[in-house]
Amino acid sequence: MRQGFFLTFEGLDGSGKSTQLRRLAQWLEARGESVVVTRQPGGTRIGDGIRALLLDSRTESISPMAELGFMFSDRAQSIAEVIRPALDAGKIVLCDRYTDSTEAYQGGGRQLGSELVRNLHQVMCGGLDPDLTLLLLPDFARSLERARRRNGRVAAREGKDEGRFEQENEIFYRRVFDQYGEIARREPLRVVAIESDEGIESIHQHIVHIVEERLARRG
Amino acid sequence: MRQGFFLTFEGLDGSGKSTQLRRLAQWLEARGESVVVTRQPGGTRIGDGIRALLLDSRTESISPMAELGFMFSDRAQSIAEVIRPALDAGKIVLCDRYTDSTEAYQGGGRQLGSELVRNLHQVMCGGLDPDLTLLLLPDFARSLERARRRNGRVAAREGKDEGRFEQENEIFYRRVFDQYGEIARREPLRVVAIESDEGIESIHQHIVHIVEERLARRG
Repeated sequence: MRQGFFLTFEGLDGSGKSTQLRRLAQWLEARGESVVVTRQPGGTRIGDGIRALLLDSRTESISPMAELGFMFSDRAQSIAEVIRPALDAGKIVLCDRYTDSTEAYQGGGRQLGSELVRNLHQVMCGGLDPDLTLLLLPDFARSLERARRRNGRVAAREGKDEGRFEQENEIFYRRVFDQYGEIARREPLRVVAIESDEGIESIHQHIVHIVEERLARRG
Repeated sequence: MRQGFFLTFEGLDGSGKSTQLRRLAQWLEARGESVVVTRQPGGTRIGDGIRALLLDSRTESISPMAELGFMFSDRAQSIAEVIRPALDAGKIVLCDRYTDSTEAYQGGGRQLGSELVRNLHQVMCGGLDPDLTLLLLPDFARSLERARRRNGRVAAREGKDEGRFEQENEIFYRRVFDQYGEIARREPLRVVAIESDEGIESIHQHIVHIVEERLARRG
């Protein structure tokens, strides 16, 4: 039987990764591949329950460590229920965010540290690393611009001072961005960073080229 | 300022640990100590949310690893919200179940292994170990007898074959019991096993004797 293939998409909010994931899934299906699409957090009923719990308790000061535990519970459930069975059946799994997101946002952005996140990944994900990670990382100024457009709306809605909100966010996103870069440098065989700012179609072609080559190697 | 003291109660269901915890709390308070009583799982609003989620999804096959993540999220929240602040304020914290329960029930009973549980404890509990653990461990036949009386009712309610149910439970409880014994042998300074089957008052006096001596050492 054909070997499964585990591919994750990573990047800041608004980086276009979800759009590219859908395009790639369509391309793979058109090629006759058996594809499973999922996302984290979520993608299972237990994951949805965790999501609801996190939203519900946002005002009740959940500890950063408890939140991290939730994220890995969600991931463990997704592995057991969705990812592992699909890989065992020889399918291609496309997952929107995985442990790299936790390392970038919680480890880097919220400064919990990479080591903590990587230790939890080791313990709770049973050694399941992606075969390939596509990291969509347009330059920082553009990424920030997108985040600003989103967060301006949030600040307005929450009645916050937009200037201060933006300044805090720039620092936070800088740390997330830098941590993603650090991951790509550390694991060049697994992670392919796509720093291009070209259009959707052009990036899609780039991704197809990379994926074709990796799938061919799968044999 | 006086140093805090972290004391946990452990044992099988029906071992009398909750009764003894209450008796000890009363005794400490009568002595003028500042005491905080809590339990795991639960004891925080987020913990209650986790509990509800676990009960709610019991029929939806939560993976053992996701369940373990929930338990440590609950514990991390309890540490951040209840235990650490109380210890920092010099109080005595009495906690009904802690990581030893996870090691005995999930690690031993459900055979996930001690190492996994102990690794998660290291990563998620910030190195917080109890100053003293009182392990109530009457002999196995008596412990099993109590579990049987409880489980007979459960089996009847769930329409299961009581004989088979009891047999499976004897094996499960044996593993939990043995794992508790293993923990006590491994950490004789922290864990005091009380194997007595005497009455509540007699065990209470025994516990008071141990706790008085430990608190005196706290200085």
